[in-house]
Amino acid sequence: MRILIDMDDVIADAEERFLEWYERDFGVRYTKEDVRGTKLHFIVPEENRKAVKAYPHHPDFFRDLRVIENSREMVEELHNRFEVYIASAAMEFPYSLPHKNEWLDKNFPFIHWKRRIFCGDKSVLKGDVLIDDHDFNLSVFQGRSIMFSAAHNMNETKYERMNNWLEAEKLFDLK
Amino acid sequence: MRILIDMDDVIADAEERFLEWYERDFGVRYTKEDVRGTKLHFIVPEENRKAVKAYPHHPDFFRDLRVIENSREMVEELHNRFEVYIASAAMEFPYSLPHKNEWLDKNFPFIHWKRRIFCGDKSVLKGDVLIDDHDFNLSVFQGRSIMFSAAHNMNETKYERMNNWLEAEKLFDLK
Repeated sequence: MRILIDMDDVIADAEERFLEWYERDFGVRYTKEDVRGTKLHFIVPEENRKAVKAYPHHPDFFRDLRVIENSREMVEELHNRFEVYIASAAMEFPYSLPHKNEWLDKNFPFIHWKRRIFCGDKSVLKGDVLIDDHDFNLSVFQGRSIMFSAAHNMNETKYERMNNWLEAEKLFDLK
Repeated sequence: MRILIDMDDVIADAEERFLEWYERDFGVRYTKEDVRGTKLHFIVPEENRKAVKAYPHHPDFFRDLRVIENSREMVEELHNRFEVYIASAAMEFPYSLPHKNEWLDKNFPFIHWKRRIFCGDKSVLKGDVLIDDHDFNLSVFQGRSIMFSAAHNMNETKYERMNNWLEAEKLFDLK
């Protein structure tokens, strides 16, 4: 069984980086509860929207993102039993690619470079399972689509859901 | 119809770069005829083999590679009619990723970032056609596998072959 796993907001906490950088630049700390069902650039004052949308284009944005809770252990567990790939639709941010790769080297060193994919759109990927936080990725995937819960997708009801990594045990019958 | 097209030695002349750098470092100019059916590191004196194998790990290796003859025009022609993706198994050389992306921006600007894939192994890609110079990529692909002729693969007989980009016209019935 081949399982494709997204990076941002599935194993790497990009939402947190938006909140951090916004506080750094504008002195206001929003919380994940504030961005529930939406995205930061929709809730900030209009004059700051452009700056927020530009954050992921900055070469440092993806550096040292926090590892999502329990993802390392559970991805390793899946990796030991199944054919696991990390698939990030990162091509929009080309300067992030080496950083994302370094981040994997550091935090998920058991994922061989052969099992890493940076693409633009995930319709081109073939697998049995996709774990992702975005409707636009899950909807074009032909296997089992599992939505990993992120603040922005909490109102989405279309998919089987993984609320946190501990739930992988039940979803993949790991016991 | 979705057509996946490899980069190195299909649209970007990496073989030439090996020959150039070898001449720069060791003062001997091998030709593509010399590497026919093999690879440069197999034919150079043993003491230089390691240096040659390290070339693609150098961050500049993939910069400004020559565009393979007629590839730009013919890929654009295919792109206008079909769903074309550029898929490079580049993950072994993570520092090349931004350079490869810049190379596409410069030489194949009509290939949107959504249609670019950097992966480790191509078995994970889904498409109807793969144009590639390597047996190890073509053999794991489930669609129509077309071998693009490079010096190193001239003895391979297993695949439908494209000897040069002008042959795309006939292979894809473009007239």
